[in-house]
Amino acid sequence: MDFSSKLIERAVNEFAQLPGVGKKTALRFVLHMLKKEASEVENFSEAILRLKNEICFCKNCFNISDKELCDICSNPTRDAKIICVVQDIRDVMAIENTGLFRGHYHILGGIISPMDGIGPANLTVEPLVKKIEATGVQEIIMALPATMEGETTNFYIYKKIAPFNIAVSTIARGIAIGDELEYADEVTLGRSIQFRIPYSNQILK
Amino acid sequence: MDFSSKLIERAVNEFAQLPGVGKKTALRFVLHMLKKEASEVENFSEAILRLKNEICFCKNCFNISDKELCDICSNPTRDAKIICVVQDIRDVMAIENTGLFRGHYHILGGIISPMDGIGPANLTVEPLVKKIEATGVQEIIMALPATMEGETTNFYIYKKIAPFNIAVSTIARGIAIGDELEYADEVTLGRSIQFRIPYSNQILK
Repeated sequence: MDFSSKLIERAVNEFAQLPGVGKKTALRFVLHMLKKEASEVENFSEAILRLKNEICFCKNCFNISDKELCDICSNPTRDAKIICVVQDIRDVMAIENTGLFRGHYHILGGIISPMDGIGPANLTVEPLVKKIEATGVQEIIMALPATMEGETTNFYIYKKIAPFNIAVSTIARGIAIGDELEYADEVTLGRSIQFRIPYSNQILK
Repeated sequence: MDFSSKLIERAVNEFAQLPGVGKKTALRFVLHMLKKEASEVENFSEAILRLKNEICFCKNCFNISDKELCDICSNPTRDAKIICVVQDIRDVMAIENTGLFRGHYHILGGIISPMDGIGPANLTVEPLVKKIEATGVQEIIMALPATMEGETTNFYIYKKIAPFNIAVSTIARGIAIGDELEYADEVTLGRSIQFRIPYSNQILK
């Protein structure tokens, strides 16, 4: 693509590095930026710069935060004895949006994936084990993706924390609410029968 | 969506203002930014800021440029007597990529669209007429979208420059190269028969 100005070219190349953004979309973003007020563009630019310079990771759960302890870890009404292990902060947001979990989180920063060169050493498994060792954690809920990599990570962490003799569970796999059985894949349907949930547990209290 | 940090929230909101970007995609962009080196993020931020502060419009054709006259208008090998009228700079790039046009451009900055509140006064029609009046332009090629708004703009500009008695054409409408006739819409197919092109004109010289 030929650009009429080096400034445009540079901005397009920068935008095109964002995930899922090609040169054409990047150019659309650049033209959009050019139509905005100078003050709005400054705000945009500053928000990104401050994001990078001022953000840090919660030293307890590795959630992204602007303080040493994130809002969840520093909230006294939340139960530090239950830890939900997730892949990244998007999963924290998704679970927080359900409003049904009142414990703490632990963000792994990925899952074990030899294909992508990610091993246990790249994840925050060690700090999780230390946290369990040091504090009175009673339950670990594994909320990782239902993929081969997710299952591998589940198993690795399970083996690591087995000596501490605490409850370990994974989130339930099964038919999504609202789904027709005929469209469900066999593995999911099979597991949903194998790991059926007693109806008495499901009556809303 | 709940964010664990105000910095994240602000950056997500800024990204979500880009065309076609929602909150989820914006969050993906933000997490991508956080994984980058600080210097890369600075480059990104600076490229956008400089884009807005240093860019200007070519005073001849209204193309985006970092000089008073754009590269095309200041290129002595290009023919200033033929002007191709386009909607915005993306169209300039598309035509430049064909390598088949060696004249100048004139960027309207939009097309007449009463539904969006865009009238002739919002476009650079007046400077186009003045340019034709002042210099020895011999031909105008209208390269606007083949839509109702494009046709309206074609007609408006045609009426405005009719007194100067110069050649005015539009780019050819018809069946795209590689297309099957059976999948073409009737209007396009009909016009492609009505405005058929003598075969002798098409033999590559």
